[in-house]
Amino acid sequence: MATTQPPDPLALELFEEIAGWPIFDPHSHIDAHRPAARTLDEVLGYHYYTELCHSAGMPAELVDPGLDPRERSRNLARYLDRIDNTVQHSWLVEIARTFHGFEGPITPDSIDRLHDRADHQGDASAWDRQVWERTRLEAIFLTNDFDDPLEGWDTSRFVPCLRTDDLVLKLHEGSTVERIRRSTGVDVVDHATLRAALGAIFERFVSRGAKACAISLPPDFAPRMTTPRRAVTPIRRALHQMDQRPDEHDEVRQVVFWTIAELCSDFKLPFDLMIGPVRNAYPSGVAGGRDLFDRRVSLHDYRALFNHFAGVTFPVSTLAPDAGPELVAYSWIFPNVVPMGHWWYGNVPTFIAADLKARLEAVPKTKQVGYYSDAYKLEFVLPKFNMYRKVLAETLADAIRGRGWSSGQALDVARRVLLENPRAIFAGGH
Amino acid sequence: MATTQPPDPLALELFEEIAGWPIFDPHSHIDAHRPAARTLDEVLGYHYYTELCHSAGMPAELVDPGLDPRERSRNLARYLDRIDNTVQHSWLVEIARTFHGFEGPITPDSIDRLHDRADHQGDASAWDRQVWERTRLEAIFLTNDFDDPLEGWDTSRFVPCLRTDDLVLKLHEGSTVERIRRSTGVDVVDHATLRAALGAIFERFVSRGAKACAISLPPDFAPRMTTPRRAVTPIRRALHQMDQRPDEHDEVRQVVFWTIAELCSDFKLPFDLMIGPVRNAYPSGVAGGRDLFDRRVSLHDYRALFNHFAGVTFPVSTLAPDAGPELVAYSWIFPNVVPMGHWWYGNVPTFIAADLKARLEAVPKTKQVGYYSDAYKLEFVLPKFNMYRKVLAETLADAIRGRGWSSGQALDVARRVLLENPRAIFAGGH
Amino acid sequence: MATTQPPDPLALELFEEIAGWPIFDPHSHIDAHRPAARTLDEVLGYHYYTELCHSAGMPAELVDPGLDPRERSRNLARYLDRIDNTVQHSWLVEIARTFHGFEGPITPDSIDRLHDRADHQGDASAWDRQVWERTRLEAIFLTNDFDDPLEGWDTSRFVPCLRTDDLVLKLHEGSTVERIRRSTGVDVVDHATLRAALGAIFERFVSRGAKACAISLPPDFAPRMTTPRRAVTPIRRALHQMDQRPDEHDEVRQVVFWTIAELCSDFKLPFDLMIGPVRNAYPSGVAGGRDLFDRRVSLHDYRALFNHFAGVTFPVSTLAPDAGPELVAYSWIFPNVVPMGHWWYGNVPTFIAADLKARLEAVPKTKQVGYYSDAYKLEFVLPKFNMYRKVLAETLADAIRGRGWSSGQALDVARRVLLENPRAIFAGGH
Repeated sequence: MATTQPPDPLALELFEEIAGWPIFDPHSHIDAHRPAARTLDEVLGYHYYTELCHSAGMPAELVDPGLDPRERSRNLARYLDRIDNTVQHSWLVEIARTFHGFEGPITPDSIDRLHDRADHQGDASAWDRQVWERTRLEAIFLTNDFDDPLEGWDTSRFVPCLRTDDLVLKLHEGSTVERIRRSTGVDVVDHATLRAALGAIFERFVSRGAKACAISLPPDFAPRMTTPRRAVTPIRRALHQMDQRPDEHDEVRQVVFWTIAELCSDFKLPFDLMIGPVRNAYPSGVAGGRDLFDRRVSLHDYRALFNHFAGVTFPVSTLAPDAGPELVAYSWIFPNVVPMGHWWYGNVPTFIAADLKARLEAVPKTKQVGYYSDAYKLEFVLPKFNMYRKVLAETLADAIRGRGWSSGQALDVARRVLLENPRAIFAGGH
Repeated sequence: MATTQPPDPLALELFEEIAGWPIFDPHSHIDAHRPAARTLDEVLGYHYYTELCHSAGMPAELVDPGLDPRERSRNLARYLDRIDNTVQHSWLVEIARTFHGFEGPITPDSIDRLHDRADHQGDASAWDRQVWERTRLEAIFLTNDFDDPLEGWDTSRFVPCLRTDDLVLKLHEGSTVERIRRSTGVDVVDHATLRAALGAIFERFVSRGAKACAISLPPDFAPRMTTPRRAVTPIRRALHQMDQRPDEHDEVRQVVFWTIAELCSDFKLPFDLMIGPVRNAYPSGVAGGRDLFDRRVSLHDYRALFNHFAGVTFPVSTLAPDAGPELVAYSWIFPNVVPMGHWWYGNVPTFIAADLKARLEAVPKTKQVGYYSDAYKLEFVLPKFNMYRKVLAETLADAIRGRGWSSGQALDVARRVLLENPRAIFAGGH
Repeated sequence: MATTQPPDPLALELFEEIAGWPIFDPHSHIDAHRPAARTLDEVLGYHYYTELCHSAGMPAELVDPGLDPRERSRNLARYLDRIDNTVQHSWLVEIARTFHGFEGPITPDSIDRLHDRADHQGDASAWDRQVWERTRLEAIFLTNDFDDPLEGWDTSRFVPCLRTDDLVLKLHEGSTVERIRRSTGVDVVDHATLRAALGAIFERFVSRGAKACAISLPPDFAPRMTTPRRAVTPIRRALHQMDQRPDEHDEVRQVVFWTIAELCSDFKLPFDLMIGPVRNAYPSGVAGGRDLFDRRVSLHDYRALFNHFAGVTFPVSTLAPDAGPELVAYSWIFPNVVPMGHWWYGNVPTFIAADLKARLEAVPKTKQVGYYSDAYKLEFVLPKFNMYRKVLAETLADAIRGRGWSSGQALDVARRVLLENPRAIFAGGH
């Protein structure tokens, strides 16, 4: 735990209090059927490790999915010392210590031993429970494909969230249309039937406990209301995989996105906007480590959306860390814009601290969503939240010293951003 | 006062010294005829409170101008706890304590009591003087419409500043033209008569003690020299409220703006550029709480202006907080570019601290304008300046410890950016 | 030295250790024939002093190259107090103290005395050696014009680096073509002969010990692969100084740039990209003080380059300080992108600290190049490196306290970014 404890006594006191609370995690990529890692390979396979080691010189082949898992771990272990300065590496150390009682350094020499300790293939569901309890998880949100059957787990703990990227950005791919038809039973051939199918998807998701809708959007996307009439032909062409001009492709994205926002309004779901990624910017990278961003984005491009859907809450994450101050301003003005966590390339303490300080100074405390793990395996929830909770404790300690806050006020703010706000915002569904 | 005192003893010592100085406030929206608030409603009506409470869930109707003032205050008070983490809220607490001797929390229960204590409708001008003196104000700049008669107050204390937004951005509106004609007596029908009218406006402002000209410009504005010849037709069409193409509208903005810069040169007035706001980005917001920005701005768009008008001083404020480092670089190179205060969405301690540190490291100390209040009522000048002075004291304490400065050097820098530079820069008018 | 010592005892301890190490400086503008300053005028002539004093009110004529050097120094000295808050001024104080044993303030009264002490016209080469040794320089990289004869110095200490700005950006100027012909003996008339000439330049540079290629690129440059076929005509027109359309001019830049990247690949040279300057943004400025930037740049524009040349290492410097977080992300993903130092307008402690913290949290420690001096005279290497080493020591002290690092780990990171990585990355040439 040492890696995540603040050195300042006042911050430490706050941290210790906060670290005892349950965790409500409003965004992750957990597979509800396999929430915790069965092997060390599933931990080390997190893209942060493979991409950072690859960036530091490890050939991508050394972590090829076709390799034996233990071999992959050994290969990666040979490069871990190159990234042991990163905060992502410190999550790994914390996982080894907290969940596997492994104290030493993670090296080529020790990796087999850690692999053995982290093997839970034989007691998978007991292990899932154990990690859940050790993490004090209250609920964790998933990211579900629109055709996910959403069956076979307790959706009050593993809460479904409808991911709509494929619908908006890949409608022109045959497989998307096929998946829509199969999962909804609607014979999608035009805008009307598409809208019906989307409605059916929302209906099913909400009926099975979904509490949010989410999408990640590229920097060149600027939502605008389109008339279904203008979209009739582009939509039909997309549904039939016919060639499209760029403006037609954008027309399709726009109308599907807008329709989904309408459904969020109808079904009272918050709509998580994750703004900025450019997919496959580095095609030769490792799996999950190929995306980047263009920093020239502005929430100004989203003003029409925020104005039109006054009744929809938009928890917003922005990928370019330097776009953080703009999110503060938009959250301060728009009642339905909520600053949500600290995402991906911005999810390192330096950027978190800068954003958090500004949010605590200028955004109403009742509408901030402090953090989400974005994790693929349950083991990561705790170290990531601890990283955030440490920065939060330090920021609050500064507020106690510098702004005259009492400990009680500070902890009240912490409780709101970590628990009360996310519980309230993500309680939705009609 | 506790809210604005730095916890570090060295910073506290500097702060206490600085807090005893007079305040020279080079930009505000004070009404010289009603400088201090007559009622609590005039304090709570500041857009920061209405917009932050609205952002936190308060319906805009609850602060409708048509309501009884006491009712408006009561309505707002019910939402104040949602924003009590913000620095804007701390200004309110400081006002209640400093000016109204009110120590307790501001809640629905206490709001009527505070309302009573803050009622100065019966002793308005005495109250104006009292707030002025308690604030140790030396001078405060106004923001005057071009047709303001500028009569009825001491312009050496309430210093006129010519606001030119309407002239540049709204010349095509009939009311603007009408106001120009009425206030100048010039029958404005074309570019030549317009220039004459603008000259008359400057003449009148300077003769009545104006010491600055100011404008706020949208992100899509990039000043360039136009030829009056090219502008002849667009100007005439604008003056007669005829339809204009976007490029014609821009031509009008350009030529009027450039003419005003020429007049600043002729009349030796500094020209405050406030760069970035997008007006009415959120039309359903509360009054004063509808504007935002697009962060994709660059001072590179202003290079032609800075080069052409080498003799005009441009105190520059930028609205996108992430544009701060660029302003440092432009102030470091252009003799006539002056970094001015910390504006609006950037006027929170986190952003102030980042900008201030960089300015103190890289911009000549003799050309920085530390701060302005931007206040609408005199009561806000002190808490806002104290917020800045606290950050300044902390930054200077770090310079004493880390850069080997003496206390004397640190206080010299403070005196320059708070008093000497603004006095020198805003002494103009021929 | 006091100006560069951190006040925190732990940071001071680290600083003292690090300050004893040799300096490997991978980018400068040193003239190998005159590395150290022969006179104070050569120190004060550094554009930072002339441009900051000019920005603070000094007329450019007062430092005109035609003046007597002592006169220039006297003129500048009269303005130095206006910039004594800047970090650049503190380099000057450190130079005076360290190299000239001059302790007092640098004022119009003392400037002649300092001028006398700094006069090394009589013992130039001994002085070069003395500054080299006092600085503990191990090697320093130059920035050589493509037609530099590279003769007359020890290239293992003053390491050549091929600067390619003129080739890429000024091929259409007759003098460039003439210089290519003269220095390569190739009669450059078309794309094929141009490529041959560029190859000859690389051949010569590498044979004389060059270890890097470098270029500074304007914000509007977005590298892309062009077909030589498309470039045939534009190249020929450029080589013959015929008029070019903007798109033809860009075609020329693209094909030359891409060819140079290919040669970096062939010759195994790292290719330093210095992204962002806009040349001559302020034409009336002092020499060296006329360039600025447009902050709207993104490394996204460089993705094709980074992907195509997987075998070329690109040490990247970005000029807009707010672009720093993006460089962190691109270095974290692309194996061949290396964050390099802290450049020019970003080379002040506040921006260094922010960038450094993020790099140490998110970029593999084995691929960071900590710092380079960018100096024109050897005397500046030490104070600039000390400024960086101080920030580094403070950042590492925070990591020891806050991230559980040992002193050994912290110093290991310091050694890598300051010595081991630059030595490894700039060891190239085939």
